[in-house]
Amino acid sequence: MIEAVDIHALERQMREGIPLARAMDLRVLEYDGNRLALVAPLAPNVNDKGCVFGGSMSSLLTLAGWGLINLKLAEAGIAADVFVQDAHLEYLAPLWGELVAEAYADGAPWAAFGAALRAKGKARIAIQAEIAGPEGAGAAARQTARFVAKRPATQAV
Amino acid sequence: MIEAVDIHALERQMREGIPLARAMDLRVLEYDGNRLALVAPLAPNVNDKGCVFGGSMSSLLTLAGWGLINLKLAEAGIAADVFVQDAHLEYLAPLWGELVAEAYADGAPWAAFGAALRAKGKARIAIQAEIAGPEGAGAAARQTARFVAKRPATQAV
Repeated sequence: MIEAVDIHALERQMREGIPLARAMDLRVLEYDGNRLALVAPLAPNVNDKGCVFGGSMSSLLTLAGWGLINLKLAEAGIAADVFVQDAHLEYLAPLWGELVAEAYADGAPWAAFGAALRAKGKARIAIQAEIAGPEGAGAAARQTARFVAKRPATQAV
Repeated sequence: MIEAVDIHALERQMREGIPLARAMDLRVLEYDGNRLALVAPLAPNVNDKGCVFGGSMSSLLTLAGWGLINLKLAEAGIAADVFVQDAHLEYLAPLWGELVAEAYADGAPWAAFGAALRAKGKARIAIQAEIAGPEGAGAAARQTARFVAKRPATQAV
């Protein structure tokens, strides 16, 4: 079964299932089939210095990666739970406004990822994600994270 | 000037200055001069699967490290702003209850850190932090992060 990819359903799933995502006021900004962008305003994500809290950056980067994998699995018609395993984060510059996090996979790993998941019930994938800096500047933060997807044990197909 | 170390002031600073820390409902649990432990309940930090959201783990680990450095600087009577620079995170096991994050520095780096900060106005330090797993089990998450502290440019002493 190929499910329609519904970014609004992903946004609802994050906001309704994860209280901190709602507290951050995150929204899905854009999905083009390869990259997922999430956005969140400054006010609920500020720190005591008036710029973006590192924990908000980390959360948005991880949710962008997690969301991207969920959308790609929905496109492929594979039901699986997705968990983050590890992450390397660089906080590169303070950010004094809205957060936009974009996640993508280097190379073209999705077919192999889907095939491994179908064959073994479990597969890993590395996802890159960045938070945009001020216009014209480099990224404010960058993350490389590994995720694992597991098919439900009870699933027959 | 040696300031008294006030963990309640640290808790207020985090909860009043960082809306997401308040949304997580974090509290300072304990500080023994070397280790700072923060605690947060499950309910506001849950994910769509019913266990702790990875972003909450990352935020608590980073705040524990940031808070520890602020307490050690207060003990040494040094005013400085503390920023996280990079982090390596391992999400080791799902956690189905309260989060307790404990931060500490390996070795005894504090005297050298304070001396470098006084001499150069800027210094870096690596902080370990862990989130406890269920009783008898290993850690649920582990982070090694590097922080930078900068003395205010206007400070004369």
